[in-house]
Parts: sequence; C-alpha cells; structure tokens
Amino acid sequence: MHIDSSVFATETLDMPGEPETVVRGGRHLFGLLPEALHGVQRIGVLGWGPQGRAQARNLRDSLAGTGIVVTVGLRPGSASAADARTHGFTEDDGTLGDWIAVAGTSDLVILLIADAALAAHHEELFAALKPGATIGLSHGFLLGHLRSTGGGFPPGHPVIAVCPKGMGDSVRRLYEQGASVDGAGINASIAVHADPDGHATDRALAWSVALGAPYTFATTLESEYLSDVVGERAILLGAVHGLVEALFRHFRIGGDEPVAAYRRSCEAVTGPIATTISRGGLGAVREAVADTALFDRALAAAYAPSRELVAEIYDEVAEGAELRSVLLAEQRLRRHPMAPIGGSPMWDHGSAVRASRGDAGGAVEPLTAGLFVGTMLAQVDELAARGHAWSEIVNESIIEAVDSLLPYMHARDVAYMVDNCSMTARLGARRWGPRFQAAYEQLALPAAQDHRTGPGPVEGFADHPVHAALAAAAALRPSVDIAVDAVGTAGL
Amino acid sequence: MHIDSSVFATETLDMPGEPETVVRGGRHLFGLLPEALHGVQRIGVLGWGPQGRAQARNLRDSLAGTGIVVTVGLRPGSASAADARTHGFTEDDGTLGDWIAVAGTSDLVILLIADAALAAHHEELFAALKPGATIGLSHGFLLGHLRSTGGGFPPGHPVIAVCPKGMGDSVRRLYEQGASVDGAGINASIAVHADPDGHATDRALAWSVALGAPYTFATTLESEYLSDVVGERAILLGAVHGLVEALFRHFRIGGDEPVAAYRRSCEAVTGPIATTISRGGLGAVREAVADTALFDRALAAAYAPSRELVAEIYDEVAEGAELRSVLLAEQRLRRHPMAPIGGSPMWDHGSAVRASRGDAGGAVEPLTAGLFVGTMLAQVDELAARGHAWSEIVNESIIEAVDSLLPYMHARDVAYMVDNCSMTARLGARRWGPRFQAAYEQLALPAAQDHRTGPGPVEGFADHPVHAALAAAAALRPSVDIAVDAVGTAGL
Repeated sequence: MHIDSSVFATETLDMPGEPETVVRGGRHLFGLLPEALHGVQRIGVLGWGPQGRAQARNLRDSLAGTGIVVTVGLRPGSASAADARTHGFTEDDGTLGDWIAVAGTSDLVILLIADAALAAHHEELFAALKPGATIGLSHGFLLGHLRSTGGGFPPGHPVIAVCPKGMGDSVRRLYEQGASVDGAGINASIAVHADPDGHATDRALAWSVALGAPYTFATTLESEYLSDVVGERAILLGAVHGLVEALFRHFRIGGDEPVAAYRRSCEAVTGPIATTISRGGLGAVREAVADTALFDRALAAAYAPSRELVAEIYDEVAEGAELRSVLLAEQRLRRHPMAPIGGSPMWDHGSAVRASRGDAGGAVEPLTAGLFVGTMLAQVDELAARGHAWSEIVNESIIEAVDSLLPYMHARDVAYMVDNCSMTARLGARRWGPRFQAAYEQLALPAAQDHRTGPGPVEGFADHPVHAALAAAAALRPSVDIAVDAVGTAGL
Repeated sequence: MHIDSSVFATETLDMPGEPETVVRGGRHLFGLLPEALHGVQRIGVLGWGPQGRAQARNLRDSLAGTGIVVTVGLRPGSASAADARTHGFTEDDGTLGDWIAVAGTSDLVILLIADAALAAHHEELFAALKPGATIGLSHGFLLGHLRSTGGGFPPGHPVIAVCPKGMGDSVRRLYEQGASVDGAGINASIAVHADPDGHATDRALAWSVALGAPYTFATTLESEYLSDVVGERAILLGAVHGLVEALFRHFRIGGDEPVAAYRRSCEAVTGPIATTISRGGLGAVREAVADTALFDRALAAAYAPSRELVAEIYDEVAEGAELRSVLLAEQRLRRHPMAPIGGSPMWDHGSAVRASRGDAGGAVEPLTAGLFVGTMLAQVDELAARGHAWSEIVNESIIEAVDSLLPYMHARDVAYMVDNCSMTARLGARRWGPRFQAAYEQLALPAAQDHRTGPGPVEGFADHPVHAALAAAAALRPSVDIAVDAVGTAGL
C-alpha cells in the first residue's frame, strides 16, 4: 500500500513481496499537525470508552498550544461524564458536551462510541454534521454494518479511519512513555474511504501521529475490518483463551497442582512467551525453549487446525454472518446478562502466581510456546493468503498481541481482558475461544504429545517471510518497557 | 396441531396447553396404505444414505402385495448401487435406476439425498417430475435453502414431509422389531406444505405408517426444520459431545483413571441415563441417583447456560446464518477434509469400558445426570417458548435421543456417531459442541461442584409439563428393547 503526503516524510518499509510506504511517528512532528489537519479547528471525540478516553487525551496533549480544541461528546446522562471531568474535559471550558452538539460543531468528528450505539445512532450523528466535516473511525465495524443494512456514509464528507493496533489503555500508556522516548506508542493503520477535498490522507496521518503511533501504514476500511475482527476472534483473544483453558486442564490431568498448571499455561503465554516475541521475534521463542523437538511438534500440530479455524472465522466475517450474530446476541442480552468468563476456578490461581513472580520471568514452556506460535503463524498465513498487507498482518497478529494485550493480561489475567473489551470482541471470543480449545484438546495436543499421526512439521519455519516483516516493523519502534503494573481498564 | 384424515383413525393426545391430533401406527393398518396413498403406483426413493436405505426397505416391506412399487434412484456411478442390490433393489426388476429417470416415473418422489446434493440438484430433479407427482422430504433443509436463495417448490405438485425422529438405522431396526411387537418403530412428524389435490395429508400419513411410526404428529416444514436443526446442534449431538468432553476431563482432574472417567461420563450418559429416561421419563433419573442434592445442583447449574446456548442456536438457524455457514464450510472442505472428532485419546478407553460391561447397567452418576437432564430441559423449554407443539418438543429433545441416538452411541461411541451423521449435523456438532463444553466447564461445573454463586435451583422440576407430555407420547409406543448390539452405520 502506498501513502502520498504533502506534509509528512514517508519511508519505504522492505516487506515480503512488495515494499510498503509508511510514516514514522514521533513528538518532533507535532509542529506539523495544524498544517496536516488542514482546516480542522475543532476535534470532537464521541464516546469515553477506553479508546475514547485514550485518544481524546493523546490528541489534546499533542495539540497543546496549537489552538486546535479537542472536545468530548457524550450522550445525555452518560455515566462517563464524571470521569471525563476528572481528566480535564469540562462543560465549563466547552470541552465536554452533548454528543449531537459536539458532532455539529466539530470539523473532525471521531466516532468512538460502542458498536451497538454506532449501529443505532449513526444516522442522527451524520445528520448533525457541519458541511464538509470529516468523519473519523477507529475500526471498520460501521462499514460492515452499513453494508449489511444497505446504508452508506453521507456524501460530501471525508471519511477516514485511524486504527491503533492496541487497546485504549495501551494507546495512552505507551504515548506517555513517548515523553521520555520519542516515538514510543502503538502502531496504527489509516484508511481513506472518502476524500472529497483531497486532504483526507494528511488529516488521517496527523491524527495517527498525534496518537503517538511509532509508524503508520495504509489499509482500506474493508481490510481493516476483516483483519481486526478476525484477529480478535483468533490469536488476540479467542485463541489465547481457548489455549490456556485447554493447557491448564492438560497439565492438571498430567499431575500438576493448579498453581503449576496455571504457570505453565496462562502465565507462560502472557509472560515469557510474549516478552520473548516482543524482544526477539518468533524465532527467538524456538531458541529459548529447552526441548526444541517438542516445540516443533506442537507448532506443527496447532498449525493445521488453527489455520482451518481462522479460515472459517474469515469466511464468517466476510460473509456478514459474524456481524449479524453479534446483533442477534445483543438482543438476547437484554433478557440475560452475559456470564463472565473469569468465573471459573482456574482464574483463582492467577493471583497466587502473580504474587510469587520473581524477576527472572520464567522458562518458555515448549509445548505451550509451540501451540501458541503455531496458531499465530496460522493467522499470519491466512491473512497473507487473503491479500492483506504485511504491516497489517504482523500488527494484527503479533505486535498487538505482544505489545498491548498480553502485557495487560499478564497484569490481570486472560479472562479479565476478555470480559473487559468491546461487546463485539467479547461475543467473538465466546463464540470462537471454545472452538480453539476443542481443536487443541482433540487434535493438536494428541498430535504433539502422543506422536500420533498428525500434520507434518511446518516446513521452513526458519525461512518464513513473517520474520523479515516483523523485523522491519520492529525497527521503527523505539525500545520501551511494555510491562503493565497499574490496575486499569481495558478496551479493544 | 390438528390432522384430518379420511382413511386413518385419529386420536387426541392430551398434551400440556392444548391437545394434539395424532395417528397411531401399526402393521394392522398396512391394508389401508393403497387407499391413503391415493393414486400413487410408484414410489421413488432417491438416495441410499442411512435414511434412504431404511425408508426404501420399510416402504417395500409394508407395501408388499399391494402392487405399489418402490424404486431406488441413484446418481450415475454411485458407490451405493452395490449395497442397494444386496438389499434386493436391482436394475433387472426395475427397482434400481438413475435418479433423474426414477424421479420422472414415480408418483411420489422421496428426496433423501445429502443436503449439499439437494442444494445443488433440486432444480433438475423438479424439472424431471411427472405432472402432479408428490414431492416428499424427510426434513426441512430444502425449505431453508430455497428461502435463502429465493427459490421455491414447483407449483402444481403436492409437497409433503415425513420426518422420522431418529436416524436411519433406528428407523429400520425398530421397524423390524415391529414384526413381533405391532407398532414398534420411530415416531415421525408430517408436514403438508402444498396440497393442490387435497390428498396430501393422507399420503403423508400412509408414508409414515409404512415406515413403522408408532405415532404420527403434525407440524410445518418450517417448525420441523427449526426444531430438527436446533436439536442436533444441542442435546442430540453437540451438547452431548461437549458434555462428555467436559466431564471426562473433570473426572480425570479429580483423580479418576481414564477408564473410570470414561465410565462416569460417556458411558453414564449413553447407558444408564438414557435407559432410565426411555423407560421412566426424566423424573425417574432423579429417583435413580444416590445423591439427589448434587443432581439438583447440577441440573440447575446446566440449565441457565444451556438455555442461553439453545436460544443462540435457534436465532442462528432461524436467521439463516447456520445454513450459510454449512455451505461456506462445505466449500472449505474441498481443500481440507474434516478431521474426525474421534481421534482424541479419550475414545481409546471406550472399547475397554464396553468390553467390561456387566448386565447391571451401571449406576446413574448424579453430576452427569443432572447436567444432562438440565440441558435437555433447557432445550424443551426453549422450543416451548418458541411455540413448537409438544409432540415435536419431546420427540426432538428426548425420545429421539434416548430411543435412537444414545443407544447407538452406547454401542459405538459418541464421537463415532458425530462423525457418521449427515454433513449438516457433523458441521453443526463441531460448531456448537465446544460451546456447550465451555459452558459446562466454566459455568455449570463450578456452580454444581463448588457451591458457587450460580443460578438458583430449577423451580418445579417435579411439576414440569414435560413429564406429562413425555408420558402421553410414551403411552403410544409399545415396549421394545432399544439396545443396539450390531455394528452398523448411522445417519441422522
């Protein structure tokens, strides 16, 4: 994918297949933001979920002194207003108001309300817009919804997306690290869906730079929607939840006490495996394990059933079935609230494990690591086979996991993360996590452990193009500590 | 639902809410078949899967001496032709032929080919029909497919369905028992979807009586489709598979050796629990357990999450999503065959358990029984809430399970059954079985075992209307031994 900017310098990223044009971020670029935003004097951020809270604060901080005002818009009676005020957005200075009013007075309206609210209220929000105001999104859900309902974006308005490849808390936390390490942040993709005045790309780049993205790559709203929704149902949430459920029981049946089983399953994935990938890539995991043969068998055993599942998820998302299922589920939720994933006894052992952590970080469990990397590779290959750009592939499949979600899961636990992300992601993890668990239990673990007839080894892991793609992406990110210590809320 | 017949005597079944009109079967009625079939001289059974094989043989045997000819139609080069010949359908006597030719020369054309073949070939089959020939179905899949593709049944043809509430092998096996016990067989529903000549209901009743149905109840093609597809994804296949996967691991983690864990999970469900329900209804299970309190807790703990899942399945089937997913999956299967469910190590222990069976039948495990009955009750209540007739509810949720599928699973195992039913059912069990497993592991088992905060006990189990409905249905069935000894093939 190519990016043309009249404001920001672009760089060429040497990715497998064909090079990509990207824009490297950094605080030294903040002076360019007013020019790049082109005519935007007021930015309205609608919604105060994790993304809204993070993006509104990052944008305000990045634009400080420019005269460009960031305002938060909430629906009447929103319980989030108090929290927004404690973060300095107030009715008194005009930076907090009713969402329709904010939509009607902003030059860039960033829609960060929940998917269900977006589905229900986008028409009245569109109707309130100033002529020519830019519509901003952070993922492609609304496009999927409009397609399935026969609707569309209002003509005459630029439509752009800036999609941080991490949850809201990480968008804020890594941005704050950027104060001491220029360029720290969460990578983001941009999509220009409508560009009636010819300045949409630069506005999107400015928004991304202001959020603190180490680098920004290009995609389409369609590709972003597909890879984002597939990713959260697979390696980001669903597969990791299914994996630790399967492995915890597997180690328990093998004789481990609960704390040991928790350590070898949940803790291994969210801690040493994630850290190793973040620092050294996928190949470093194989080098870190004591039993390479077991790692290889596990990787191969997980790859085939995971690839089939990711392909199934992709088909269901692309066909529209997944989105319709979410809407049907939300209707049922009016009758019965969703039971938490974290209510089962496994999670009781997490606090003991976290309390007993040393500085060493723990060993990389070869069986766990092989299954996890095998699943990750399956998602990478399926997205590549469906034609996604490599920046999108490695950010949606690897970097978002190891630099945003897994550190957060390490601080709390996997179940807490799943129970505290968006409704679309929560429902997706519930639909697909059990499918991954069954695939590990019934297919991958028998093949990996008992040397049963299973898939052959994954050929050419050492030469897989993902390593070069991940290294190219990592080269644009300054080194920061991604560990999460504080207690916070999530938000995918 | 009401049935009007000019040939067969109807009876009133005292069901909760409102009475139903049904027709009791039996061999003494076979003399009425020619009159009831009204103008049908040739019956063409297309397909030689388990239902085709069973129905063609039952129909031929029931119509022996009437002059009405039953012919089997197969696609060119079908591998099933040899088996059909060994069962006495031959080209030489004109009872075996090409499916298009058979469709074009039959007065009643019964479409028992696979769902995918039905989706692909129904138009050419419709085009081959004699004017006014009756189209016969054994489930509502084709209606769902025609709705989703905008197609329809050809005008001028009666369209009827006779839907045995059991797999093909049971339809034949219990029919053979009818030789010594008049009226033994598998209950069936009928649906009259188009009735241009006014004789469709009697033709459907004749077909059902000729298959050996102990009693025939009325439904619509739409209701049959919904309850049938929901049922196989829930208590008939998906839920029972998820339950035994969850319980086997649960008992293993609790310290059981594999054979003991298999006995308390798989064997308990397919053997003593199924037999107890078949002989005495759901209440008899509670009376048979040693630990009634544990049974009650397990029933309540399984009920709530199962009810939610059945509601989700119902929504997905009714909305068309499930059918589209099956068609998407079949496209993927062209690239990769489906991995068998029976490949995991759990099933290795089944043969040892089966070999060590005594005559006593084993104890009714209270935890296993409570979870199973709780799930069954959830399906019963959800189908009742959606307006299904009670005959349909108890046949799709209980009788089909305990009199057809579970005895078959007891003879082989659950995984074998899942791996040898129709593609639609196999795919459905794979999609939903893991969801049930996760619900048992993460919600029901913790609530049942650890006395965690969970759903309250199911109020009024003793007074539940299902007991009366099941008793009314059971009163029409003569007592036969439903055990399966022989090795055979399945076919839902």
